[in-house]
Amino acid sequence: MFAELNFNDRLREAQSRKESILCVGLDPDVDRLPRHLLRGNSEAEAVLQFNRTIIASTHPYACAFKLNLAFYEVLGRRGFEVLQKTRHMIPADCLTIADAKRGDIGNTARKYAQAIFEQLNFDACTIAPYMGRDAALPFLEYPGKAVFILVRTSNYSSIEFQSWPVEGVPFYELVARHAVRWNMDMPGTIGMVVGGTHTEAPAHLRAKFPTVPFLIPGIGAQGGSMQAATQAATIKGRILVNSSRNILYQASGANFATRASQVAMETQHRLNQLLTPYQP
Amino acid sequence: MFAELNFNDRLREAQSRKESILCVGLDPDVDRLPRHLLRGNSEAEAVLQFNRTIIASTHPYACAFKLNLAFYEVLGRRGFEVLQKTRHMIPADCLTIADAKRGDIGNTARKYAQAIFEQLNFDACTIAPYMGRDAALPFLEYPGKAVFILVRTSNYSSIEFQSWPVEGVPFYELVARHAVRWNMDMPGTIGMVVGGTHTEAPAHLRAKFPTVPFLIPGIGAQGGSMQAATQAATIKGRILVNSSRNILYQASGANFATRASQVAMETQHRLNQLLTPYQP
Repeated sequence: MFAELNFNDRLREAQSRKESILCVGLDPDVDRLPRHLLRGNSEAEAVLQFNRTIIASTHPYACAFKLNLAFYEVLGRRGFEVLQKTRHMIPADCLTIADAKRGDIGNTARKYAQAIFEQLNFDACTIAPYMGRDAALPFLEYPGKAVFILVRTSNYSSIEFQSWPVEGVPFYELVARHAVRWNMDMPGTIGMVVGGTHTEAPAHLRAKFPTVPFLIPGIGAQGGSMQAATQAATIKGRILVNSSRNILYQASGANFATRASQVAMETQHRLNQLLTPYQP
Repeated sequence: MFAELNFNDRLREAQSRKESILCVGLDPDVDRLPRHLLRGNSEAEAVLQFNRTIIASTHPYACAFKLNLAFYEVLGRRGFEVLQKTRHMIPADCLTIADAKRGDIGNTARKYAQAIFEQLNFDACTIAPYMGRDAALPFLEYPGKAVFILVRTSNYSSIEFQSWPVEGVPFYELVARHAVRWNMDMPGTIGMVVGGTHTEAPAHLRAKFPTVPFLIPGIGAQGGSMQAATQAATIKGRILVNSSRNILYQASGANFATRASQVAMETQHRLNQLLTPYQP
């Protein structure tokens, strides 16, 4: 029955159950892992142990985990295994997002969709919009799952193309307008990636797209504002606020798990406090 | 010494030596492999055997091979191994392109660059432009290598965003104008992906960007015109014309290698004939 819910319903359910809109980003950078994990371990083993500990320490405070695939691909031959094992460590009461930023066409996009939604059974995936709807359609064939389109990304050079004025609005807004039409007659859900470093973007886009789920990265290490992010949260328009480095790398000693747990809890609470005015 | 040449020099050298501007796309789709390869073999083994045979049959006619990473990732646990082994099967007189269409930022882009340029030692990589220069810079730190930015893609829905008029020109042209500035003071080379299905695009972009290498996909199965592609070829402005499915899947029986070899040779010759008026 759960599988028949659409992604928005599943997101609402997960967020209500966990009383959290926090998504923990599992971006395990070998250069930043606590050194003791690497002693006598391969890099792949160290990452697995790190992820296992981070998931155990933070899942009570999170409604979702986002895995940035680059950090797994760079592990080479064992990357897929680490990705798959990490995916399966995530408790069933949390949603899972493959931050893959894929953007390809036709038969290629279909292959990516199979890998991410069938083999790895992620609940959602991020997609780059430049090639148009061809990049998203194969992912939208999956009921209950979501495709988060890069609309307003959190990085500095996002202004290079995304802010260009086109027909009186920034380019990213036109991308958003198109993207929300891509799932007509498709079972999948369209979501948007809206960087929390652009303080105006979350509320601006929410006003235009009242029911689209937003994935908001850039809080924490990138300096984004939790307050700006939560302004996009409404009962019907859900947001997922992602924090990666700020939770993962609080400490480099044996206390890294305790510190990660503490910061995840604080972030959950802070987000909930900020939400109160919007979601009574 | 070879490693000190920049990518344009390496491309010129490879094309002169092989008398070819053909790039063979290694997109091994398990559903389309000759069935006899799958008998008694795992999918990964069948793909390796297919690639080995295709490379052996076509490399005399090609100056480069392009590997679309989606087809390897979908193999799951053994995907990286198949990718790595295929990479190492490619003769040293051909350049190698990772068609990854990656687009991510900062530490993530750096991880992708390490995986593709260091671990796998590809000569070039495709990159999606939506996030701006952050996605390309880590790849441009490698001397002798190139980053092909998606400018005008070959798929139908590329018109959705790429054709939008901005400041009097199509959006893709503004992307191109920005992209050519990204490698200032960087050792890497900027190239562009220009779909051969848009008959006007190759010559139009060549007029604006006389020395940028173009990777032109969409010839063959996607219906692109070899003639339109070769109009972008000049002595200083090199092009690589890619063909994948039209070479790989000519036959499904034991004769697949002979047919692939024949079509690769015909394509090489046809391209060279078309080139003659442009490169005396």
